[in-house]
Order: sequence, then C-alpha cells, then structure tokens
Amino acid sequence: MRDAYHEELDALTDRLVEMTRLVRSAISRATTALLDSDLQLAESVISHDEEVDRIFAEIEASIFDLMARQQPVAVDLRTIVVALRMGTDLERMGDLAEHVAKVARLRHPDSAIPPEIRSTILEMGQIAERLITKTGSCIASRDVESALELEADDDAMDRLHRRLFKILMADDWKYGVEPAIDVTLIGRYYERYADHAVRVAQDVVYLVTGSRTQDADLR
Amino acid sequence: MRDAYHEELDALTDRLVEMTRLVRSAISRATTALLDSDLQLAESVISHDEEVDRIFAEIEASIFDLMARQQPVAVDLRTIVVALRMGTDLERMGDLAEHVAKVARLRHPDSAIPPEIRSTILEMGQIAERLITKTGSCIASRDVESALELEADDDAMDRLHRRLFKILMADDWKYGVEPAIDVTLIGRYYERYADHAVRVAQDVVYLVTGSRTQDADLR
Repeated sequence: MRDAYHEELDALTDRLVEMTRLVRSAISRATTALLDSDLQLAESVISHDEEVDRIFAEIEASIFDLMARQQPVAVDLRTIVVALRMGTDLERMGDLAEHVAKVARLRHPDSAIPPEIRSTILEMGQIAERLITKTGSCIASRDVESALELEADDDAMDRLHRRLFKILMADDWKYGVEPAIDVTLIGRYYERYADHAVRVAQDVVYLVTGSRTQDADLR
Repeated sequence: MRDAYHEELDALTDRLVEMTRLVRSAISRATTALLDSDLQLAESVISHDEEVDRIFAEIEASIFDLMARQQPVAVDLRTIVVALRMGTDLERMGDLAEHVAKVARLRHPDSAIPPEIRSTILEMGQIAERLITKTGSCIASRDVESALELEADDDAMDRLHRRLFKILMADDWKYGVEPAIDVTLIGRYYERYADHAVRVAQDVVYLVTGSRTQDADLR
C-alpha cells in the first residue's frame, strides 16, 4: 500500500492526465467549430478553458503545498518540479485551443477557413488530437518509447504548417488579406499546440530516464 | 558571510539577470535588423540564441543538481522552482527574438516591413526592450512595485498589436498577402515576448510576497 504522501504524488499525475483530456477535447471542438462555423461550439471551448486553468491552479497550489509540507527529495522532488512544468505547457495548450475557437467566433456566421484550406486544417486538428492523446498515455504509463514516437507527428504538423503558407502565398490565392491573417494565426496556434505536447512528452522521458540526452530526437 | 549553498542560489539569480540582458539585446538587434534589412545583424541574433539556450541549460542543470545535493526546503525550494520557470520564459523570449530576425533574413535584401508599419514595429521593439529591462531589474532587486509597473507597458504592447491588425485590414493596404503574413507573425512574436516578460515579473512578485493574488493585476 502507498502512503498518503505517495498518493498525493499519484493524484498529481491523475490531474495532469485529466488536463490532457480537457485540452484534447478543446482542440477537437475548436477545430470543428472553425470548420463548421459553429458559434455555440466555439463559445463552449472558450468558456471551458476556465476549467483547464482551474485544474492547473490546483496542481500548482498542491505542488507548492507538497514542497512546503513534505520536503520532498531526490526522485520525488524531480517528479514534482517536472509536473509543474508539464502543467504549464498543458495550460498553454488550452489557451491555444481557445485562440482557435475565438477566430471561429470572430468570423461567425462566415467561415474563417476558405475551402482550399479546409483539409489542411482538418489534418492539423487530427494530428493535434493524436499528439495530445499520446502525451496523455505517456504521462499515465511513463512509456518512453511512445514519447519518442511523438516526433513523427510533430514533423507531420510542421509539414502541414509549411503547406498552409504555400497555399496562402500562391498566385491563385483569391481571398485577400483578412483570411490570410486568420489562417496564419490559426496555423501558428496548431503548430505551437504540437510543440507543447512534444515538450510534455520530453519531460516524461526525462522523469523516467533522468536524462535529457533524448532531447535532440524530440526537437 | 553567505555559505556556499546560498552563494549558489545567488549565482542562479545572476544567471537569470544575464539571460534578461541577452534576450534584451536580441530583441533590440532583431528590431533593427528588421527595420534596416540588415542581414548581418539578423544572422548575429540567430547565431547568438545558442548562448541563451546554453545559459538556460546550465541553470536547469544546476537547479536539478542543487535539488539533489542540498535538499532545499521552504523558501529556498520555492526560489529554485520559480527560477526554473523564469528561465523557461526567458529562453522562450530568446526564441521569439530569433523568429523576428529570421523574418528579416528571409526577406533580405527586401524589407519585411512596409513604410506604414515601421513606426508601430519600432514602438513594439522599444516597449519589448523596456519590459525586459524592468524584468531584469525586478529579478535583481526583487522589487514588487516595479514588477507591477510592467502591466502598463504590456497594455501598450497590446494596443500596438491591435493597431497593426487595423493597418493590415484597412482598405488601403496595398502590399498584398505575403507582407501581411510576415507582419502578422512579427506582431505575434512581439506580443508573446511581452507576455513572457510579464510572467517572469509575476514570478518575482510571487517569490517576494508568497502570493499569487496580484495575478489579476498583471494579466
């Protein structure tokens, strides 16, 4: 049986996994809201970001509380400190999903996404979901192998991001400046979302192996 | 006299202040490189970002080393954990300055910045410099009052960011899509740079007061 202290550490992991579920749902709904010009869905993403912020505030408070009460050392201390960093990244991912939803809301009832861009945005949303799903599994299972797998998905995201710019800058782009600005920002939000997911996975690798040498593979 | 342990903590603060100097110089030079289409200056910002990354890696290593060796508790532990978070934000600010420089390099010998945008970008660069200068003083002096002052500068940055979009979306914008995309991304980089500076200052407030209640004022 685990003592109360280690149960608190486990609870921390559970809360981080919960954050991954929330920010996964957020980016999934934000993508749909964007592609379907669904105002209600966009609003729900925007209002639900508070929940992510609240869980992160709880994680943060319990971490500083744990540090004050338990005086953790060695492995436990490392776990706690890295959990704080993971929470920071996940909180930011919630913000980025919210940013996507805000663009959908801003342009409603029009769509921010011209037809030529739809499939790329859909794919970016799918990869974002796949990344955060894997990140969640990594945190729960501490599986280093699957953490390293995220690299391929992140590369795919970068390729889609470049494709987006190619479409925007092509001679046959006929939508003018405003949609180009929207798409530029949206593309950046997805790309940053992916970067943060990879960073969280990097932290899982660090926790398990105690080494940052795999960084190069994940960047 | 301070013992070796507390000297290590002081050294951590010095290293963070050094990071603020480097990322200040980076955004200052990146702004000039952008406005003057100065390729050599842009290259120097890009190549010098490694130095920021290296100092952050040293800070990170010494923090995990301190935690393992000294088993810090209470205030010291909080200081160390928050220093890690500050370092993360400062490292990111270096990346953002590098991103600005990369746009300058990409468009050289042309300028990425149309004449109508110059003064706004110049102001954004000046505010970014002012913010990081104040952040550096905050870290060094642990002055809560000046940390709270950053809010006004951050508001000014947000206003300039909105002005940028207004210019881009005005009917008389005659530069087409590509410069609009560049300016959109550049604006985002400055705005994020400012956000990170504010976050670091928030952490100084937290270290001094032990309270996050001032968050509302700083966001």
